[in-house]
Amino acid sequence: MTPPPDFAAIEEAHRRIRPFVRRTPVLRAASLDQASDAHLHFKCENFQRSGSFKARGAFNATLAAPDGTAGFVTHSSGNHAAALALAARTRGLPAHVVMPRTASAAKKSAARAFGAHIIECEPTLAAREAEAARVAADTGATLVPPYDSTEVVAGQGTCALELVEDAGVPLDTLLVPVGGGGLLAGTLIAMASASPGTRVIGVEPAAADDAARGLQSGERQPQVLPVTTVADGATTALSEMTFGVMSWLVHDIVCVSEDAIVQAMRLIWERLKIVVEPTCALPLAAVLEARVDVRGQQVGLILTGGNVDLDRLPWLN
Amino acid sequence: MTPPPDFAAIEEAHRRIRPFVRRTPVLRAASLDQASDAHLHFKCENFQRSGSFKARGAFNATLAAPDGTAGFVTHSSGNHAAALALAARTRGLPAHVVMPRTASAAKKSAARAFGAHIIECEPTLAAREAEAARVAADTGATLVPPYDSTEVVAGQGTCALELVEDAGVPLDTLLVPVGGGGLLAGTLIAMASASPGTRVIGVEPAAADDAARGLQSGERQPQVLPVTTVADGATTALSEMTFGVMSWLVHDIVCVSEDAIVQAMRLIWERLKIVVEPTCALPLAAVLEARVDVRGQQVGLILTGGNVDLDRLPWLN
Repeated sequence: MTPPPDFAAIEEAHRRIRPFVRRTPVLRAASLDQASDAHLHFKCENFQRSGSFKARGAFNATLAAPDGTAGFVTHSSGNHAAALALAARTRGLPAHVVMPRTASAAKKSAARAFGAHIIECEPTLAAREAEAARVAADTGATLVPPYDSTEVVAGQGTCALELVEDAGVPLDTLLVPVGGGGLLAGTLIAMASASPGTRVIGVEPAAADDAARGLQSGERQPQVLPVTTVADGATTALSEMTFGVMSWLVHDIVCVSEDAIVQAMRLIWERLKIVVEPTCALPLAAVLEARVDVRGQQVGLILTGGNVDLDRLPWLN
Repeated sequence: MTPPPDFAAIEEAHRRIRPFVRRTPVLRAASLDQASDAHLHFKCENFQRSGSFKARGAFNATLAAPDGTAGFVTHSSGNHAAALALAARTRGLPAHVVMPRTASAAKKSAARAFGAHIIECEPTLAAREAEAARVAADTGATLVPPYDSTEVVAGQGTCALELVEDAGVPLDTLLVPVGGGGLLAGTLIAMASASPGTRVIGVEPAAADDAARGLQSGERQPQVLPVTTVADGATTALSEMTFGVMSWLVHDIVCVSEDAIVQAMRLIWERLKIVVEPTCALPLAAVLEARVDVRGQQVGLILTGGNVDLDRLPWLN
């Protein structure tokens, strides 16, 4: 099993990546506080470089790699690919991204805009992993998985450190979207030391509830297929490592409906005046659907990214 | 003629409204700098209270009103109405808003959400002015016009003061949308003292070019009707006062195409990850269409507000 980072590794990641990532703002909205009867603190990783929190883990992994590294390779088709491309370019090294040939043109061109070298493959996880391994062998590139990586999880944990510092008050609850579990695992390890009094709760779509069922059963669950949720960043299964950290440290995993995700996304756009992707809306959806009781509490919500297709907004369907 | 404020009045407005308005951030985007070959500094009034810069003028007018004021009245149907309602409520006083009965339900409910008392009238300027005068006479409320007001223009000028302080570099050019000219007039007076080396340039839609034709001819022009531009905040005619300040201090007024407005609005959403209304896009549209030469320059752009109908985005038509 890939070892999880400890708190010192997250602090080290923060020092390492600080010159290269943004300290994203924490925004508030009086009308959302009223609607939820709570004090909501939104950590806005939609303003992060490459458009999502994934820049944190990607920069930590590339900056931690030794001199003489030949480049980097991954097989994510989403935000991690763009983040790794940006981080690799910053070190002057190539990034190879294996994408299913069915990936959208928008995703390919986003990664290409940051300098990625795109390799297409069949749209199965096995084909992607095999192709990534082949590229690593052929080019000497270092594999940087999207979440099953000590360095990546350490980088993702830095987001919570900043939120704890910038919220200005102790947080009673922190709500985090769950996909592959990299952000959740990093956040859990960070909060256990930086703010042990905060309940950390993962949120996932009811239509992709593998983490919740895994927590209940004690057995890691496979990805829910076919993918039907609009929160496309929250559909991945956890890795052995992220599942282990979750089982050990998380307060709870709650699930939200598709309607609540769309409504919460729209509310964030309307009230905070920011562009966020559907996965960002999971924490606010949990508050609005009362999947977690936060009445009167100070609540942190991590908004994961802002890479959304402006031609296809979910409330316009 | 309504007298324009002097610089001291703008500084006084800033001290007065500071506890009630947000010091909005100045955002940047490397990809937009590259696309424009300039250094762009976006002053983000979409994050302002009530969703637009209009809160500055409205708060200044209501806070400057003497004790014993019975309330406030205006006949704007847009951002000024919501801003005045919020500002009046903060003083514990009523706000009466005269709106044409044809105004959208969204606009009525936005003003109502801030506590405004809505009075409907026929959809002509004469009917709106007559009804507002009647309400003022009946209730003793003080009229706060959307731009033909010394206090309102002084409040709008505070936005440029903050941009000059927060940009961190001297600005070569500052681009400002022009509607009724309240923001432009306040900005011109503020910059003439706070940053006299900056060229201040107004931007309006080519489809609503009354300010540009007025500047060329030396004669104030009426509103262009029918309204065909997507930038609905930039369709009003200037007042005698705002026209006078413009004629006296502005470097130039430039006009942009509808295509450029829509494209610029979309770019702001995509790259800055913020929700802005179409009128905000005028300054960036002027840069993209090269209506003004800013190559190599430090350029300020005022983004006026974020109150947009999320069901009707202009690039989806």
